[in-house]
Amino acid sequence: MDSAKKDDVFAIEALRDWATRLYRAYGFDERDADRIVDSLFFAELHGIASHGLQRIGMYDMLIGNPNGGVDVNAKAEVVRETPVSAVVDGHHAMGQITSAMAMELAINKARTSGIGIVTVRESNHFGAAGYYTNMAAEAGLLGFASTNTGPIVLPLYATHPFLGTNPIAFSMPAKPHPFFFDAATSIVSHGKIEVCKKEGRQLPEAWMVDGHYQPIWDPKQVPARPGLDVDGGMLPVGGMSEETGGHKGYGFSILAEIFCGILSQGNTSSEVDGLGIRHGVGHCFAAIDPGLFGDPDVIIDRFSDYLEQIRRVPAAPGHRVYVHGDKEEIAYQAITAEGVVRLDPETVASMRSVGDRMGVAFR
Amino acid sequence: MDSAKKDDVFAIEALRDWATRLYRAYGFDERDADRIVDSLFFAELHGIASHGLQRIGMYDMLIGNPNGGVDVNAKAEVVRETPVSAVVDGHHAMGQITSAMAMELAINKARTSGIGIVTVRESNHFGAAGYYTNMAAEAGLLGFASTNTGPIVLPLYATHPFLGTNPIAFSMPAKPHPFFFDAATSIVSHGKIEVCKKEGRQLPEAWMVDGHYQPIWDPKQVPARPGLDVDGGMLPVGGMSEETGGHKGYGFSILAEIFCGILSQGNTSSEVDGLGIRHGVGHCFAAIDPGLFGDPDVIIDRFSDYLEQIRRVPAAPGHRVYVHGDKEEIAYQAITAEGVVRLDPETVASMRSVGDRMGVAFR
Repeated sequence: MDSAKKDDVFAIEALRDWATRLYRAYGFDERDADRIVDSLFFAELHGIASHGLQRIGMYDMLIGNPNGGVDVNAKAEVVRETPVSAVVDGHHAMGQITSAMAMELAINKARTSGIGIVTVRESNHFGAAGYYTNMAAEAGLLGFASTNTGPIVLPLYATHPFLGTNPIAFSMPAKPHPFFFDAATSIVSHGKIEVCKKEGRQLPEAWMVDGHYQPIWDPKQVPARPGLDVDGGMLPVGGMSEETGGHKGYGFSILAEIFCGILSQGNTSSEVDGLGIRHGVGHCFAAIDPGLFGDPDVIIDRFSDYLEQIRRVPAAPGHRVYVHGDKEEIAYQAITAEGVVRLDPETVASMRSVGDRMGVAFR
Repeated sequence: MDSAKKDDVFAIEALRDWATRLYRAYGFDERDADRIVDSLFFAELHGIASHGLQRIGMYDMLIGNPNGGVDVNAKAEVVRETPVSAVVDGHHAMGQITSAMAMELAINKARTSGIGIVTVRESNHFGAAGYYTNMAAEAGLLGFASTNTGPIVLPLYATHPFLGTNPIAFSMPAKPHPFFFDAATSIVSHGKIEVCKKEGRQLPEAWMVDGHYQPIWDPKQVPARPGLDVDGGMLPVGGMSEETGGHKGYGFSILAEIFCGILSQGNTSSEVDGLGIRHGVGHCFAAIDPGLFGDPDVIIDRFSDYLEQIRRVPAAPGHRVYVHGDKEEIAYQAITAEGVVRLDPETVASMRSVGDRMGVAFR
């Protein structure tokens, strides 16, 4: 997440109201503005601050960018469809709006056909992938979501990036809350490395290598942003060698690319330019009805019991065995009980500046 | 794979003939014996020796085991079916026979509905997962396969195993050969650790931890076989902490479990006993037609070009950037050109002993 100090405290409802007015001011209609805000708050309230309100500044750079980026007036279009699948051209509309539409389409197909897979091309940053898989879980379905990104990750043993951080997320209904997995196929997200750089801290693990394939520890050595022509880059999950399993994260990254860039017939990570301004990113969404395989209530109860057994496995000293989604649920309960969100000064300054320019003053 | 010395050389065709006669001697009919042998040779000829002929000894322990294991006379049964899915009860038949039937079912469903997902319960060890995804790729489809195993892998920060090595494999048609990914969701397979133990070599990376969650380096510390009641175990891909990404391999392992143990309504890894003798393992097979999304020839050509670009990314000194499946293809070309297979003495001794007992003398 973000280790910067978060001194400023804001009431959730007032923040949400401000954010909705901001996106209305950009020209989004009420439903679309609500969707964007809902996605941002899903992340913020579940403790996924990296994809929460701090993204408002980045989205501001993309919305109405004269070089491309987000086209406020664009509407995503279904260009191909079967009872179990669809291909969506985002036409550079806001990533969240296109993506929620695509996941709804996958959910509807899963409700009628049992399975729905929707690939998306020419889209924009879609926020937290888990927002969409959570939509499926709320509908009682197993949900998948993935996206490609700009090229900042190395294929194993390569010295130049070619892959995106290509997160893969999935959610499965469970009690008391869904199983929720949302992870970049790189060791960490780029944001974690940026935090080290900002704070002048050594990188704690071999998350990146330089052009000689040597781990980068010194934050000064971290390139402004890795890219096709930059030496070195981020390592895939599993690390820098086959003995540590680096080919595995590398493989899962290509899996994301097969769905988001190849089956969408859009851009691969290697073709996406900075933030996808001219060449949009691609996504994939899928939903599967557990009822295809048996009584869904029985299946979900047994899965819940299975997860509960994992939580009870003895843990290393000072640790607890969490199941994916537990930490997000704990954060959600704590934040919503308090009714406030804590933001770091940089995020607040960025929101203030964007609000002022858009005529929607923040505080 | 296997670093033992392989001094003995055998002609492929003679070996294949012997192996077929062996499985006929166990009581399998011609078609089933061919399937088992085909799976073993797929692995052996693609350089995946861990799942090749050295498994003949292990399967011998399972076939006709009075405590359960492989039932030679059992036939797998489709217990639930829709146009896009099926559930198969293996009734403890040989894993390869059940699995090939299940993947054929998934392929047929993908041909008519675009997608097929088949879960399998009460099966046995199925060999190399990639054998089945390759069947899909040969049919022009994207293929997935997974299996659970006995409990030998730790959830992140746990000190007792609960997960299997739960491999995930996928193949996507490409030129000149399919993309082919087949990997345990643990850092390495158990076989690699056994090789260190057998050779008295230090473990080169933190593949396992002990009951105090400290890495095991000394091969003498490696337990005979990890299990629910044994302290320590194998680590998931990504390693021993969240900073190294250990929660990611742990999550992909649960993904395998959702399909193989939960949606199959069979045993989870935590319920499978040694080699699945009494409580069979579960699998999942899926096939997706790229033609759902666009012209499959165009999609596959572009994917092939994408993979070719990855191969050309500059590599670290002494390395080459491989795409998943390249090494297996290189091994296949080399081994079949020579027409012989090299086996280590232990494998040869085991084959000889099994052959003698079954009245199918090996050389």
